[in-house]
Amino acid sequence: MHQPRVLCIPNFSEGRRIGTINALARAVRRVRGVVLLDQHTDPDHHRTVLTFAGPPAPVAEAAFEAAKVASRQIDLREHQGGHPRIGATDVIPLVPLGGLSMRHCVTLARALGRRIGSGLRIPVFLYEEAASRPERRRLESLRRGGLDGLSRRMAKDSIWRPDFGPNRLHPSAGATVVGARPPLIAFNVNLASGDLGAACEIAERIRASGGGLPGVKALGVELASRGLVQVSTNVTDFHGSPLHRVFLAVKEEAAKKGILIESSELVGLIPVEAMAQVAEHQLQLEQFSLDRILEVRLERLLSARSGTQGEAAE
Amino acid sequence: MHQPRVLCIPNFSEGRRIGTINALARAVRRVRGVVLLDQHTDPDHHRTVLTFAGPPAPVAEAAFEAAKVASRQIDLREHQGGHPRIGATDVIPLVPLGGLSMRHCVTLARALGRRIGSGLRIPVFLYEEAASRPERRRLESLRRGGLDGLSRRMAKDSIWRPDFGPNRLHPSAGATVVGARPPLIAFNVNLASGDLGAACEIAERIRASGGGLPGVKALGVELASRGLVQVSTNVTDFHGSPLHRVFLAVKEEAAKKGILIESSELVGLIPVEAMAQVAEHQLQLEQFSLDRILEVRLERLLSARSGTQGEAAE
Repeated sequence: MHQPRVLCIPNFSEGRRIGTINALARAVRRVRGVVLLDQHTDPDHHRTVLTFAGPPAPVAEAAFEAAKVASRQIDLREHQGGHPRIGATDVIPLVPLGGLSMRHCVTLARALGRRIGSGLRIPVFLYEEAASRPERRRLESLRRGGLDGLSRRMAKDSIWRPDFGPNRLHPSAGATVVGARPPLIAFNVNLASGDLGAACEIAERIRASGGGLPGVKALGVELASRGLVQVSTNVTDFHGSPLHRVFLAVKEEAAKKGILIESSELVGLIPVEAMAQVAEHQLQLEQFSLDRILEVRLERLLSARSGTQGEAAE
Repeated sequence: MHQPRVLCIPNFSEGRRIGTINALARAVRRVRGVVLLDQHTDPDHHRTVLTFAGPPAPVAEAAFEAAKVASRQIDLREHQGGHPRIGATDVIPLVPLGGLSMRHCVTLARALGRRIGSGLRIPVFLYEEAASRPERRRLESLRRGGLDGLSRRMAKDSIWRPDFGPNRLHPSAGATVVGARPPLIAFNVNLASGDLGAACEIAERIRASGGGLPGVKALGVELASRGLVQVSTNVTDFHGSPLHRVFLAVKEEAAKKGILIESSELVGLIPVEAMAQVAEHQLQLEQFSLDRILEVRLERLLSARSGTQGEAAE
């Protein structure tokens, strides 16, 4: 568990042709040392998200191989989907795990971007922690105006020159955004209410952009099949805004409207540290550290041992 | 993390002679595949507890090798310590981890007991889940009357014939208890009070033996250096009594006496499941399972893979 690893969550603009989707997953699985953790395809969004992890070099290799498949099999000129996108391989976030530094992940993102730029002749923009300019830190700014908007900015303004690859879009594969960021937790709180307006107001109150919790994005969403509404959040900084604080903020804002909490849910995966944080708070634990968790200590010791062997063998 | 593993926590009646303590730890470390997680020596108790883990066979091998060292280097006839004990290797609990079944652990305990009995000529009693008789399930019943009490019962009553080895104590190494049990969590709740009587009363209320929480043992303890008292618990069944329930029970009983909680603490290690349980409860999480934890899923997939490779190689 505490071997330095990278989590990679590339998004591809293909959510319908199963042959291409399988080819993308195969390209990842084929790389030794990489584990495919999850594969999520949305035909409406016309988009597939792969989640995989492993040591830095194999993860970058797998991301490159999948981007190569995407550049050959996906043609954005034929692409119609609900989700904003600028590339066949639209975005490749790299997340440090198990004690790997963010700096290491940024270096890896740069190397991967360079390889995609020169190897596949696709313009690559670095974002988030890997961004080379503050204007390009956020994905939204790169996607503004879609593929056409980006193409115009690239032609007109040197600020929008890509970090790697040619200064024009790839005819079929567009552009690709590569970067490094902390893990993101998708955490939704369900309200015992059908009042969508209330959910939207609560979301506005608790999210960072409304002056609420740092690193928290939130929306009100209707769960029609259950007759409930939900405050759907993305927690981009669980150290700054632990889940128990997000939960409590929603609970308190809901209480002001006389609404109770029904339940909450995680979408996708959560780092063990984010779970431990909640328990630590709840139990008022003193001097807790992650390696008090039996399995964490075991994996740390096992990987320290195999790490040593690895070094000796080099 | 989710490779089937065994956790072993043998207790040895030696807490003073560093040469012997080191020899015990060395015997464990020498076995390939075994990781020594913790080593705790108490000179007053004259006792050393090693904690190690690994696949079943190497763990049993390490336990046997350490018991052999103990039988050669520890003489109970010279032993004076605060802790009740009946053997040089006093007790060897085996705990299933990572999806290993309790049944498998019981089988392992029997094989290890047989080997100690015949190989080292020490009488071995199986306890807890591995017990061959209900009277011998609890460690306390085996220790009743100390070494002399056990020796008398062995001579008089066929109920107290050992499971393995000779039907008399080993002259210097006494007897050894071997068994399988679920993980135990040592969890203490500190009260913002110096009233030891209150801590003892709360402990009595919440523990299983007082009609409180199932699988919970509890004592009132004074923390003289901090001017606090503590409800010190052993949670032997965290599925039945999750830590948040133990914490809340202490908090509620303390509140009845007008006492607040200062903090809590873990002694030793805690299974990731016991931490996740608290967070799941606190966040009212729906449909949570352990493999929603990124690191848990990663390790499960990695060990499933190495498991497959292992089988192919056999």
